[in-house]
Amino acid sequence: MYSFVNDYSEGAHQAILDNLIKSNMEQSPGYGEDEYTQKAKNLIKSHIKNDKAEVHLVVGGTQVNLISICAFLRPHEAVIAVTTGHICVHEAGAIEAVGHRIVSVEGQDGKLYPENIQSVLDTHIDYHMVKPKLVYISNSTEVGTVYTLEELKNLSAICKKNNLILYIDGARLGSALTSETNQATMADVAKCADAFYIGGTKNGALFGEALVITNPLLQEDFKYFIKQKGALLAKGRLLGIQFATLFENEADLFYKLARHSNIMANKLQQGFTENGFKLLITSTSNQVFVILPKTIYELLSLEFKSSIWEPYCDDSYIVRFVTSWATPEKEVDKLIAALKKFK
Amino acid sequence: MYSFVNDYSEGAHQAILDNLIKSNMEQSPGYGEDEYTQKAKNLIKSHIKNDKAEVHLVVGGTQVNLISICAFLRPHEAVIAVTTGHICVHEAGAIEAVGHRIVSVEGQDGKLYPENIQSVLDTHIDYHMVKPKLVYISNSTEVGTVYTLEELKNLSAICKKNNLILYIDGARLGSALTSETNQATMADVAKCADAFYIGGTKNGALFGEALVITNPLLQEDFKYFIKQKGALLAKGRLLGIQFATLFENEADLFYKLARHSNIMANKLQQGFTENGFKLLITSTSNQVFVILPKTIYELLSLEFKSSIWEPYCDDSYIVRFVTSWATPEKEVDKLIAALKKFK
Amino acid sequence: MYSFVNDYSEGAHQAILDNLIKSNMEQSPGYGEDEYTQKAKNLIKSHIKNDKAEVHLVVGGTQVNLISICAFLRPHEAVIAVTTGHICVHEAGAIEAVGHRIVSVEGQDGKLYPENIQSVLDTHIDYHMVKPKLVYISNSTEVGTVYTLEELKNLSAICKKNNLILYIDGARLGSALTSETNQATMADVAKCADAFYIGGTKNGALFGEALVITNPLLQEDFKYFIKQKGALLAKGRLLGIQFATLFENEADLFYKLARHSNIMANKLQQGFTENGFKLLITSTSNQVFVILPKTIYELLSLEFKSSIWEPYCDDSYIVRFVTSWATPEKEVDKLIAALKKFK
Amino acid sequence: MYSFVNDYSEGAHQAILDNLIKSNMEQSPGYGEDEYTQKAKNLIKSHIKNDKAEVHLVVGGTQVNLISICAFLRPHEAVIAVTTGHICVHEAGAIEAVGHRIVSVEGQDGKLYPENIQSVLDTHIDYHMVKPKLVYISNSTEVGTVYTLEELKNLSAICKKNNLILYIDGARLGSALTSETNQATMADVAKCADAFYIGGTKNGALFGEALVITNPLLQEDFKYFIKQKGALLAKGRLLGIQFATLFENEADLFYKLARHSNIMANKLQQGFTENGFKLLITSTSNQVFVILPKTIYELLSLEFKSSIWEPYCDDSYIVRFVTSWATPEKEVDKLIAALKKFK
Repeated sequence: MYSFVNDYSEGAHQAILDNLIKSNMEQSPGYGEDEYTQKAKNLIKSHIKNDKAEVHLVVGGTQVNLISICAFLRPHEAVIAVTTGHICVHEAGAIEAVGHRIVSVEGQDGKLYPENIQSVLDTHIDYHMVKPKLVYISNSTEVGTVYTLEELKNLSAICKKNNLILYIDGARLGSALTSETNQATMADVAKCADAFYIGGTKNGALFGEALVITNPLLQEDFKYFIKQKGALLAKGRLLGIQFATLFENEADLFYKLARHSNIMANKLQQGFTENGFKLLITSTSNQVFVILPKTIYELLSLEFKSSIWEPYCDDSYIVRFVTSWATPEKEVDKLIAALKKFK
Repeated sequence: MYSFVNDYSEGAHQAILDNLIKSNMEQSPGYGEDEYTQKAKNLIKSHIKNDKAEVHLVVGGTQVNLISICAFLRPHEAVIAVTTGHICVHEAGAIEAVGHRIVSVEGQDGKLYPENIQSVLDTHIDYHMVKPKLVYISNSTEVGTVYTLEELKNLSAICKKNNLILYIDGARLGSALTSETNQATMADVAKCADAFYIGGTKNGALFGEALVITNPLLQEDFKYFIKQKGALLAKGRLLGIQFATLFENEADLFYKLARHSNIMANKLQQGFTENGFKLLITSTSNQVFVILPKTIYELLSLEFKSSIWEPYCDDSYIVRFVTSWATPEKEVDKLIAALKKFK
Repeated sequence: MYSFVNDYSEGAHQAILDNLIKSNMEQSPGYGEDEYTQKAKNLIKSHIKNDKAEVHLVVGGTQVNLISICAFLRPHEAVIAVTTGHICVHEAGAIEAVGHRIVSVEGQDGKLYPENIQSVLDTHIDYHMVKPKLVYISNSTEVGTVYTLEELKNLSAICKKNNLILYIDGARLGSALTSETNQATMADVAKCADAFYIGGTKNGALFGEALVITNPLLQEDFKYFIKQKGALLAKGRLLGIQFATLFENEADLFYKLARHSNIMANKLQQGFTENGFKLLITSTSNQVFVILPKTIYELLSLEFKSSIWEPYCDDSYIVRFVTSWATPEKEVDKLIAALKKFK
Repeated sequence: MYSFVNDYSEGAHQAILDNLIKSNMEQSPGYGEDEYTQKAKNLIKSHIKNDKAEVHLVVGGTQVNLISICAFLRPHEAVIAVTTGHICVHEAGAIEAVGHRIVSVEGQDGKLYPENIQSVLDTHIDYHMVKPKLVYISNSTEVGTVYTLEELKNLSAICKKNNLILYIDGARLGSALTSETNQATMADVAKCADAFYIGGTKNGALFGEALVITNPLLQEDFKYFIKQKGALLAKGRLLGIQFATLFENEADLFYKLARHSNIMANKLQQGFTENGFKLLITSTSNQVFVILPKTIYELLSLEFKSSIWEPYCDDSYIVRFVTSWATPEKEVDKLIAALKKFK
């Protein structure tokens, strides 16, 4: 039974695996002081055209978020995020555990807008309240939407004006940047953000996220934080090898894998609409949110795994289907074929 | 140039790598809910003959330490450890960052003794001071010594008597349990400790440590903590596959790899003494600490990497040589041959 | 110019001051080990008819809240509170700073209801999310409303059923319990809550809040937390003397002062409505929220201080007037007289 | 029975009490925004001849220490202190609870020296360890010794050279500055330290410590931290009135009270030596540490309270006698008279 539950069901893309195997018995210095890690960092800095940026490779996304926020903020400073943001829900209080409040706002379609930020600034005015300091967004968002370049620039502008840090969770940045509707390059993202990360786990790596800190004021002593939070991988080269593979040749593999997941999602989404199903939101990335009657969801689940996002009216669910770098087109075709039965 | 700097210079043992490759394109549930992880946990529980124990697989050692201590202690409770303990020095304040003081005591040869614990209890007597609650030891220790079974039982006894938690950092537990002088089994360790972890990173895995919580009072809600500290690996099966491979057939591979590292260390240590060099301490595990005149250290370093532990008198260093599952005997032989030149 | 800005503008009631003066040159043990503190604790336990309760006296309300929540919760556990709750807004992130998320819900008229709690429980279902564990309410609330006895019992019931802690912030508990519409006694509050505190600062003391922990499971080692958070007053008797004075003779002074503040507020509120002003909410405690045209607010402000709660439509403010144990009736009369001018 | 147990057994000096009484029914803004607080701050800034300094008044010493260290340090930064330092022992882990390690060193006679600092710097060299950043000393120290002006300047110099913050706990600063042997003025202290506090609790106030931040880089947003840690006193004027009283007329009362305590201690210390008792250390401040045979300690304890510091040999104790602003000379005389019996 094929699973569309998430984009981290399989291991790694073969090219990554091959490079891990090839280098397996080499001896390297630990903790990211090896040459593979250095190479990966250089490839990323070159790709975003910013050799002043600092790159750090760590294992997981919650880890990057909590380490970054812990390192960037003073204890009285707070994060602004949309209520659906990953840090607001699915990180088990990781941000509060390092001492910071997240001021959550509604946003729209999973996105945060300057007026949302402004409303938080307007109501946090003295030392009785936390001081908003870091704006957290995800691109693509938790509900599969993608920020336009203009939206990113607008967010960057209000942040700069108010001395706020713009931080972008890029667990699915590949999918966002290869979205049909996207105009932003990774270099654009790097220019807009003070820091962002590039997701490997959901884009063909065994694991790994590459944090890019472009704001020099946020770079100092960052590696202490990676260590302190238990995130400094002894065999750091495992991260280096993976990101070097993804980012070789102008990040060819990185984008290829992400694009594939989008194309699969797009085909699947079209399959749903053509068979009369309503979408929660029109996705341009690798997550599709469709409204399915409960009975149809259950029948479909006999052949394909997906996940219930939330109930919808009395008799339906919003169901999430996620495609990935590893999704075979024939599984998408089979799912669409199955849909026709319910038409 | 061969490196004796640490026991995590290479990747994984071939059997582990093979199993990772074989399963690479299978789809599994995330976050350790997969069958490989279940299998690994069962193998470990069976090996220690305790099916009430709870096993958690995480990526790194500092991570296990900080998560466990955070989960086990209330905020006013403190850790007792020897001054050379890993958490006292080389974890960048990870334990304090989750709010706990480490009360450090001298110990002897890297080991903690009941009288050290008692001295802390005697001086921490009211609410103006922290309340000692968890005893942290490493086996083998940071300086390569191994606790005897009786020593472990004595520590366990004083802990039980005083309602203290005994926690054993087993980053090098394999090396301890396969030490020539060791009488304790892993089941013994499990009986003495309230919780301990079994190191994979330094014993043939790409990464991974298996935490075993034997005290049921410490098991509740533990997985929340793994998530909150950013340590819940999305592709959790990577850990499951590695530990299942190490612990199949009564942990055959686990002990074989550890034993090899000890044999190599033992041979190397003998080489040093036979060639007239003094040891800091007689090691029975995979770390050798030898006193080398600075000039000899420098000549040797042209052919072999090792690390300066600390200066010794004016003209010498204490130098650490670490062997591992991957150390070829011929490199040990070459090093010993090189020593003869300085005799 | 008289101020209705808050209920802590003056010092202490004369009886309290007299007792402080009288005992000034006596020598007492520090840190609350003195006889006055013991007496105060006994008076409170006797008043709530629960000699198993534990009472702790500390200086301020934010302090009690953060110490209690830090002591009662494990790091992955979260607080449920209404969005207007003091800990959600006006404590500068004190709760997050000790590591806990506050899951905020809308509630109604500043009050939390069982269905609000249930909605949080329904959506927090696994280890990816925080675990809701403590329900925080204020009585009276931030907007001056008072929980009925039935409402308190209902909250207590859902908490007990779901193994949640019910914690009541009683910064203005005196005002709540002497509210016209109130049927609950302090003993009732003590029965419903696992812990609650009795506000002194806003009811005639120089400072001081008395935390009452009725749930024995929450009592262990509490004094360590008071010390650790810097809240253990060296001259602890200052707190003891004040609460002993308030709670002598069945808490006669405590209720007398609170009742006075309510009567003043009630008179003031009636003055507003009789002169044609609309209330935000009908208050039964010592805070009055009235809607005033901006021009009237400004004219009134020439004679009386009050505070803008928030804007209301384009041309008005919601304005808060707070009365206290110290509010002279003649100032209320003068304010009402002034209102007539705007009629 | 008279107590020499500590210097906070009584309430406040009469002049302070009078000013509290006189202003009791005035209405003031809360949270230190009142005129008394402003006056106190100005008096202190004028007294140290530094109008760029920032002064904050809070209730207790542990509070000042934890708030300052929390506000001044980033999470990976550590404190250097002597093992006898108050934060190392008697603050129930307050500093670790806000996330920071204290690297403790032996020092001498309760004092820290540049070579102690250097030894910590020499061994904390990379991101695997905490980064030493703040030097904590007390003046007078926990064992009653007083830093010379030269010693303070030397500490200041090594701190500046290594970009470390020098923080002085002045719970007994009055006693230090009025010590016979002292040459430093408070203005000197202010020049040497990046921040220090002036103790009121142990020098005639009901409570209160005045933190002075001279380093402008450490001043930003400090009041948020006071609030977040629950230390922002609602009736902040209570602190203002007390410090204004102590610092009026060039801090006349502050020094007068401190000097009295020293004179009493000095007389007492002389009484001990003249009657043949050995001192642990020759104190020049208000704490006397004397070695008493157990039998004599017990006989003396029938008439005078003091506290056992620690056992000394088999048959003696080191006993601490503390004098204060409130110690009547006749009690010292009576104690000395009693000593003669044991001669």
